Amino acid sequence: MNIDGQHRQSIWYEEAGDRVRIIDQTLLPHDLHLVTLDSLEAVCTAISAMQVRGAPLIGVTAAYGVYLALKEDPDKLQAAVERLRATRPTAVNLEWALRRCQSLLADVPEAERATQALALARQLEREDVQTCEAIGEHGAALLERLWRERLKGKGGERLNVLTHCNAGALAAVDWGTALAVVYKAADRGVPLHVWVDETRPRNQGASLTCWELQQRGIAHTLIVDNAGGQLMRDGRVDLCVVGSDRTAANGDVCNKIGTYLKALAAADNGLPFYVALPVSTIDFRLGEGAEIPIEERAPDEITHIWGAGAQGSAMQLRLTGSGVQACNPGFDITPARLVTGLITEHGLIEANARALRSLRAGLGGEDSASAQG
Amino acid sequence: MNIDGQHRQSIWYEEAGDRVRIIDQTLLPHDLHLVTLDSLEAVCTAISAMQVRGAPLIGVTAAYGVYLALKEDPDKLQAAVERLRATRPTAVNLEWALRRCQSLLADVPEAERATQALALARQLEREDVQTCEAIGEHGAALLERLWRERLKGKGGERLNVLTHCNAGALAAVDWGTALAVVYKAADRGVPLHVWVDETRPRNQGASLTCWELQQRGIAHTLIVDNAGGQLMRDGRVDLCVVGSDRTAANGDVCNKIGTYLKALAAADNGLPFYVALPVSTIDFRLGEGAEIPIEERAPDEITHIWGAGAQGSAMQLRLTGSGVQACNPGFDITPARLVTGLITEHGLIEANARALRSLRAGLGGEDSASAQG
Repeated sequence: MNIDGQHRQSIWYEEAGDRVRIIDQTLLPHDLHLVTLDSLEAVCTAISAMQVRGAPLIGVTAAYGVYLALKEDPDKLQAAVERLRATRPTAVNLEWALRRCQSLLADVPEAERATQALALARQLEREDVQTCEAIGEHGAALLERLWRERLKGKGGERLNVLTHCNAGALAAVDWGTALAVVYKAADRGVPLHVWVDETRPRNQGASLTCWELQQRGIAHTLIVDNAGGQLMRDGRVDLCVVGSDRTAANGDVCNKIGTYLKALAAADNGLPFYVALPVSTIDFRLGEGAEIPIEERAPDEITHIWGAGAQGSAMQLRLTGSGVQACNPGFDITPARLVTGLITEHGLIEANARALRSLRAGLGGEDSASAQG
Repeated sequence: MNIDGQHRQSIWYEEAGDRVRIIDQTLLPHDLHLVTLDSLEAVCTAISAMQVRGAPLIGVTAAYGVYLALKEDPDKLQAAVERLRATRPTAVNLEWALRRCQSLLADVPEAERATQALALARQLEREDVQTCEAIGEHGAALLERLWRERLKGKGGERLNVLTHCNAGALAAVDWGTALAVVYKAADRGVPLHVWVDETRPRNQGASLTCWELQQRGIAHTLIVDNAGGQLMRDGRVDLCVVGSDRTAANGDVCNKIGTYLKALAAADNGLPFYVALPVSTIDFRLGEGAEIPIEERAPDEITHIWGAGAQGSAMQLRLTGSGVQACNPGFDITPARLVTGLITEHGLIEANARALRSLRAGLGGEDSASAQG
């Protein structure tokens, strides 16, 4: 992605200093602050405190966590994997990346483990960029087609895309998933406008997606999560594109809490609802979405809020009276019947068990979360 | 309602001092601050700045506004009505109360106008309490029945009601609409738990509904607006009850933005979705919801947020980067097909044109917003 004109990734390795660096996403959009990850603990904290978030990025970060653990103690592979696995329960990429580390490193002599772990982490980083770009290209072809159809029909100035949460460059190493589709479509000349759900409780839409779209110069408007349904009723949305943290073998999609409500509204208004995702987020071991564990996060993410005070410094306010109980599920399940299609790095596929079985067969089982399962 | 053990209304007239008093709802739950309304301008500010909000309460407040205007200048009836009508466009009670004032006062000699206006405002205030209590009783009978059915079926400790925004005592003179149902059901011994949507952007759920339920000692849990769909999928919601700002003659319901999304989720999960409303909020002049004007509010309600700082004082934070555009529709339309029933002061009726025509015929057209239309 471009930040103030300079190309950056969400995570990168610096040979000088032998260190891993990330953008602290909890401080955006108010502060662009880089954090150095130099230990397993620093990586675990970065993932659980959501300095890094988004399924693809969590996977790559975890691989660097394995490297940093093995650099300290080459005998620590299993312990590091278990420690990292516990940081976030829902995103399956974490599991997928850790399995790739385990299967590659288990038989490597201790003296070479750290070196091999670093090579793997850097490979996963490169692969993620390629995967996201491929997702973007497949999705952009779809948006081009929708735009041409729109021009034949009701016309209009631009194609209106609604997205939820942040499935952008900040959710991956670069490009992202849902926003990769937007970026690549904009590069192809499709005139776009993005409705950005603020995405309570952590407001990744308001703070991260708006920031990315601003940096990229793509027209967008922030809305509360409550508003998308009415905008669809008013004909102001042409399609929805969201990301996914884990997708079951039947096409049920687990994504940021609130996704299901937008999928219902899209279906009720006859609008396409697409999910952009790398195949690594498909969990072929799980027959349906109900089997996906949903992370419950701390209630104070709801009762309190962070923002910028009058002087621009980060501050927290209490939104409720004292003693208010809150319940904070982080994700929801959108049933496959509400999903128009899955935009993957291998192209657009239907959200059903048959299409996913066929995808898996074509890949020889190598790319999926259950490859080693 | 009871506040810290003392009985209070959201608005009341004090003969000593000849003044109208309200609770400033923009400061709850952090501060219980009373405001004196002593002029038309003070009333208009209170309504447009949402110190008072909620369809029933807006109507009564507007009637007091007419009184205060006429007290100053008995020739000011038409000007006062027009000034008050412009404060909020969506809630039809404002229109309904102003029409009642106009039709009663137009032919009253100037010398008696203010006295008559005060008498009418006090009458509307009393009627609103009776109306809300009647809504509550009809709804409570329904909840008792649902609870008995639940005990025969899956059982459980309590009936789980999901509500959106604040349709409680603070949205009316007392009792409220949706929450009157909850209060009266609790009084009848139905064990209840309320899921409270925080209701962005103004968080009336988090700040007002939680506060009311706390004062009343009714179990409740705050959730973000995104979460209700998943809670329904998980079997943790038994029914939804919301209020309405205006209902069309075909049963389409206009209510706080986000209501439509919860109605979709309730329908998708086979759960009842009830709307509690006084007949005065039904606009028989409008054939369907699409004709209801939807208020667009200021973008800074989304980009900025109020809360309590570390010292407990009210503060505002910026949530987004600078230059972010936001779109802020205040209400949405829930189509009648998604509404299980309307809980009115005249009982439970179906949300369709036939049932509403029959209701109107039974009332002789006197109670509705279009009585003088």
